[in-house]
Amino acid sequence: MNITFPDGVQREYQEGTTSMEIAKSISEGLARNILAAEVNGEVWDLSRPLTGDAKVKFLKWDDDGGKSTFWHSSAHLMAEAVESMFPGVKFWVGPPIDKGFYYDMDLGDRSISESDLEKIEQKMRELAKQNNVYTRKEIAKKDAIDYFTKKGDEYKLDLLENLEDGNITFYTQGNFTDLCRGPHIPSTGAIKAIKLTSVAGAYWKGDEKNKMLTRIYGVTFPTQKELDEYLVMLEEAKKRDHRKLGKELGIFTIDEEVGPGLPLWMPNGTIIIEELEKLAKESELEAGYKRVVTPHIGKEQLYLTSGHLPYYKDSMYPAMELDGTRYYLKAMNCPHHHKIFAAEQRSYKELPLRLAEYGTCYRYEQSGELFGLMRVRCLHMNDAHIYCTRDQFAQEFKAVNDLYLKYFKIFGIEKYVMRLSLHDPAKLGEKYINEPELWLETEAMVRQVMIDAEIPFVEVKGEGAFYGPKIDVQIWSAIGREFTLATNQVDFAQGRRFNLTFTNQNNEPETPLIIHRAPLGTHERFIGFLLEHYAGNFPLWLAPVQVKILPVSDKTLEYAQNVLKNLKKSDIRAEIDERSEKIGRKIRDAEMMKIPYMIIVGEKEAAEDTLSVRRHGVGDKGSFKTNEFIDSLLTEIREKA
Amino acid sequence: MNITFPDGVQREYQEGTTSMEIAKSISEGLARNILAAEVNGEVWDLSRPLTGDAKVKFLKWDDDGGKSTFWHSSAHLMAEAVESMFPGVKFWVGPPIDKGFYYDMDLGDRSISESDLEKIEQKMRELAKQNNVYTRKEIAKKDAIDYFTKKGDEYKLDLLENLEDGNITFYTQGNFTDLCRGPHIPSTGAIKAIKLTSVAGAYWKGDEKNKMLTRIYGVTFPTQKELDEYLVMLEEAKKRDHRKLGKELGIFTIDEEVGPGLPLWMPNGTIIIEELEKLAKESELEAGYKRVVTPHIGKEQLYLTSGHLPYYKDSMYPAMELDGTRYYLKAMNCPHHHKIFAAEQRSYKELPLRLAEYGTCYRYEQSGELFGLMRVRCLHMNDAHIYCTRDQFAQEFKAVNDLYLKYFKIFGIEKYVMRLSLHDPAKLGEKYINEPELWLETEAMVRQVMIDAEIPFVEVKGEGAFYGPKIDVQIWSAIGREFTLATNQVDFAQGRRFNLTFTNQNNEPETPLIIHRAPLGTHERFIGFLLEHYAGNFPLWLAPVQVKILPVSDKTLEYAQNVLKNLKKSDIRAEIDERSEKIGRKIRDAEMMKIPYMIIVGEKEAAEDTLSVRRHGVGDKGSFKTNEFIDSLLTEIREKA
Repeated sequence: MNITFPDGVQREYQEGTTSMEIAKSISEGLARNILAAEVNGEVWDLSRPLTGDAKVKFLKWDDDGGKSTFWHSSAHLMAEAVESMFPGVKFWVGPPIDKGFYYDMDLGDRSISESDLEKIEQKMRELAKQNNVYTRKEIAKKDAIDYFTKKGDEYKLDLLENLEDGNITFYTQGNFTDLCRGPHIPSTGAIKAIKLTSVAGAYWKGDEKNKMLTRIYGVTFPTQKELDEYLVMLEEAKKRDHRKLGKELGIFTIDEEVGPGLPLWMPNGTIIIEELEKLAKESELEAGYKRVVTPHIGKEQLYLTSGHLPYYKDSMYPAMELDGTRYYLKAMNCPHHHKIFAAEQRSYKELPLRLAEYGTCYRYEQSGELFGLMRVRCLHMNDAHIYCTRDQFAQEFKAVNDLYLKYFKIFGIEKYVMRLSLHDPAKLGEKYINEPELWLETEAMVRQVMIDAEIPFVEVKGEGAFYGPKIDVQIWSAIGREFTLATNQVDFAQGRRFNLTFTNQNNEPETPLIIHRAPLGTHERFIGFLLEHYAGNFPLWLAPVQVKILPVSDKTLEYAQNVLKNLKKSDIRAEIDERSEKIGRKIRDAEMMKIPYMIIVGEKEAAEDTLSVRRHGVGDKGSFKTNEFIDSLLTEIREKA
Repeated sequence: MNITFPDGVQREYQEGTTSMEIAKSISEGLARNILAAEVNGEVWDLSRPLTGDAKVKFLKWDDDGGKSTFWHSSAHLMAEAVESMFPGVKFWVGPPIDKGFYYDMDLGDRSISESDLEKIEQKMRELAKQNNVYTRKEIAKKDAIDYFTKKGDEYKLDLLENLEDGNITFYTQGNFTDLCRGPHIPSTGAIKAIKLTSVAGAYWKGDEKNKMLTRIYGVTFPTQKELDEYLVMLEEAKKRDHRKLGKELGIFTIDEEVGPGLPLWMPNGTIIIEELEKLAKESELEAGYKRVVTPHIGKEQLYLTSGHLPYYKDSMYPAMELDGTRYYLKAMNCPHHHKIFAAEQRSYKELPLRLAEYGTCYRYEQSGELFGLMRVRCLHMNDAHIYCTRDQFAQEFKAVNDLYLKYFKIFGIEKYVMRLSLHDPAKLGEKYINEPELWLETEAMVRQVMIDAEIPFVEVKGEGAFYGPKIDVQIWSAIGREFTLATNQVDFAQGRRFNLTFTNQNNEPETPLIIHRAPLGTHERFIGFLLEHYAGNFPLWLAPVQVKILPVSDKTLEYAQNVLKNLKKSDIRAEIDERSEKIGRKIRDAEMMKIPYMIIVGEKEAAEDTLSVRRHGVGDKGSFKTNEFIDSLLTEIREKA
């Protein structure tokens, strides 16, 4: 059989060869480092024999598919440990998750406390050292039912009810056998570092009328070093929690009477919003964008035309009935921008027309999904739509990607990945506009731009927008947590749906291509990210209060007010701590509020007309003349350092 | 009987004396200039005898009540003229309106064309010269029915059906008698200038199932000069129509599929929005405001707490049902701002706390009421709420009024009136929060601020907000049309309803007073006003395109691009007209777009490195060095000249 590798190389193997054997035939080193294989787009056990021509990609720890297989196998390892310590335990499901895995189980009358977790970990380490092989076995439904009936496990029997005969597999490692679709890593020995993070209750099938099961969460790594780093990151993430910092620093609040997922931006948060908008507006002005302002609602017909109602309704707020018409809150700004494009006769000379708006959209997320600023229902979006010809597309799309890179630099985002999200042919007409050829054509256009611009990217099927392919941007915060930030999308569908045309050079009407883009994402998510990324220590240009003036006593209050006046003249955001507290307390409170600069004003400074300056987290910076200090601040602000 | 005049002076008159006799007893000059009298708050004929103690205010042309009486009498005069020319005509109703009057009539088989209007005008002038007296006569219902039955007038008979015996009056002037409540001016001679402006069809009682009547609109004045000025103003207003200019200058558009009353702001309009916001933000920063950003929706409970749902529901959009809760689009920003006040523990040291937001609100107006930018459903409001102690109230309220005056100066608004809008005791608990004493107390506070600040104002009963009294600001555009712009309101109710407290100097919780204010009103109405006020000729700082560079030919295109680069470096909004049109055409088009400055770039200018500058509506300004020109522009922008 013919095996094709990701680089296009093809090699012949005998039918029935396993992926592991193929890897070994290439190099022993490769074989040691892989966890699973992607065979024709599906993740398989390395030990599973291939039965015909196939595309094969080996998955390592750094691949998403590698990690999830590793954690899935770790869930089985945990189940083995639990079963050996709690005989008769019955297991429900144990999937890999975003970071790690869990397993739901019925312990009967027994219970597991946080202190038991360490014992289970210990047992897991023992079993991992045995390096037991994960063995896959196809099994007839009847035999599977027999097995779990004998074991008295009603949960697995429940799962079996919904499985088709011929599609059922068991996996066994050591003394533990589970009903499981797989795939798994070759053997338990790869699991070198184990941490069970928590235990919680979880209703069977998520239904509170059902029995409460025990859910144990854990995470594992191929090396102890990676686990240690992860635990440090977790600890740091807790300190940097954007909800905690958001409250302490007066950034935002969420009020039950206003509604869940609807943050109210406090004065300090609003300053950050306005600085981000200023940055975006300046960048967009320079890049030739024009700004527009549109309402937050539109008639039902608008969203029927756009396709939001058929394809996106679940994410929209419900309708308001008015004068016999249904109105909807906008979930995206595009239909309104299209109407502005359509409001005037357009010529090719006007293209590319780039319409930008910090538009506020409303999207429905289930209340259980809402999370601080990360998952909200109100989104202030750094939005724009670029109407262009096919010839202009590549340059425009690349210019948007360049804007991303510019922003990454400003915010010190060192790690990022661009994902090319494609349609899923199986869901044409359901999740995606039913235009198979246009999908392939525009996907190829975007792919080519990325290749030509030498921007590293990965491709993901089934994550495109309903109207076209897109680039999703993932970024990593300073402590290595991943965020999905922004998108750059191409749209071949809405131009036609809205009858948008321009007069081309042959004096004929032509439909523009549309690029949807939001490099700074939403204020909500981006500021949430920045809170964690900077741990609340915003760079000077973003800091809500840039300078706090701390008079040592009331005697120097007048001098402090003079300093304040001078700072304000230069548009520096400064405040005086006028409380009659000791200077030590004033410094501590300003440090707590993470204010970049403190000016300590004692009688000496007042007499000499100087400033004693302290930098947050750094300490004493010495004595400055006011003008000298202001100049250094203005430079730091201008350079967004 | 005792007659009290507005200045508080009291005089004794014999019972049965008429207002006209009283006026004459004061001065013949006064008597000549008055049109009606306000007797105990009700407008009366000057010829009607007073029957007991009364407050009397004489109404002149400049008083609203004087004008409406004058126009009401003019409608009767028109009816008399029509009846003399079209015997057998039947009349329905003929009220005064905002500017002038109309009368609806049934002409049988006959019809009136625009060309007939002049003949009717002529007849009216004749009848006016006869100086016939308007005579009031109380009449029994039976006699009134007899009169109109004989006349065969089913319309007046229909009106009579709903009138109570003892309350019915006839008015007669010359040969014309009408069923009418009055009041009227003394005689027709005061009507010196007459213009019938249009004729239209109008269904009887506004119901399209009824017969179509003929409606004639007209306007009259005490002098020909005033009519002439009015007609010039009308002509000018047509040219300055904000809907026409808004389209021509690319300011805004309204799209049927988005919805009526929901303007979309085009790029040029958005520039004006952003300049206005910049002005507001700078002014508010200087005045110690803090900015916030809040969502556009809130739960039902929020508006039950605020009182909007009981008192303001008709002006709100209908609810959206989500997860079993009703959400509403916000019609005002206050409840959200109150939640931000409540989000932190507040001390008297933080007050006054001034929270500002250019918040977008949604209000329901019936579709028939919608009008361009003047009556809309989406309102971008220059909003803020000031939370203060009672001691701080006067100073804060005055500071807001000062902000108004500052803005009036910037926009060249020379005529304005502040109206103190009070509650109506009869509607407590229905239209107004039921707190009679707090109403009187806060009304007195506001009145005192206005008196102390020596700001001229008038008082109007029954126009307060539901939560407190307010100052409504009316301004006049350059061509003398009146606009209601902005409000400054005091609120004694919502602080308590939202349980807002601060810790006062005695360490006790206290409820703040709240000032609601919006000196620049809404973008919608204010930009609509500015379009008319400036006739689209925006001052340089507001002009969407400040400079248009007009190359004489392609040969000077490169030089033009250089000039553009220099202008943009100084943040001047400039564009090049790159079309291969003749320079005359380019100038004409730039003049049409009302672009303040045009730079004509020929070979001479390119060779000498100069600019030939032309000012919109003025013409050639001569030759400039680039830097010199930019400096003069920057000065003009900075000074908002």
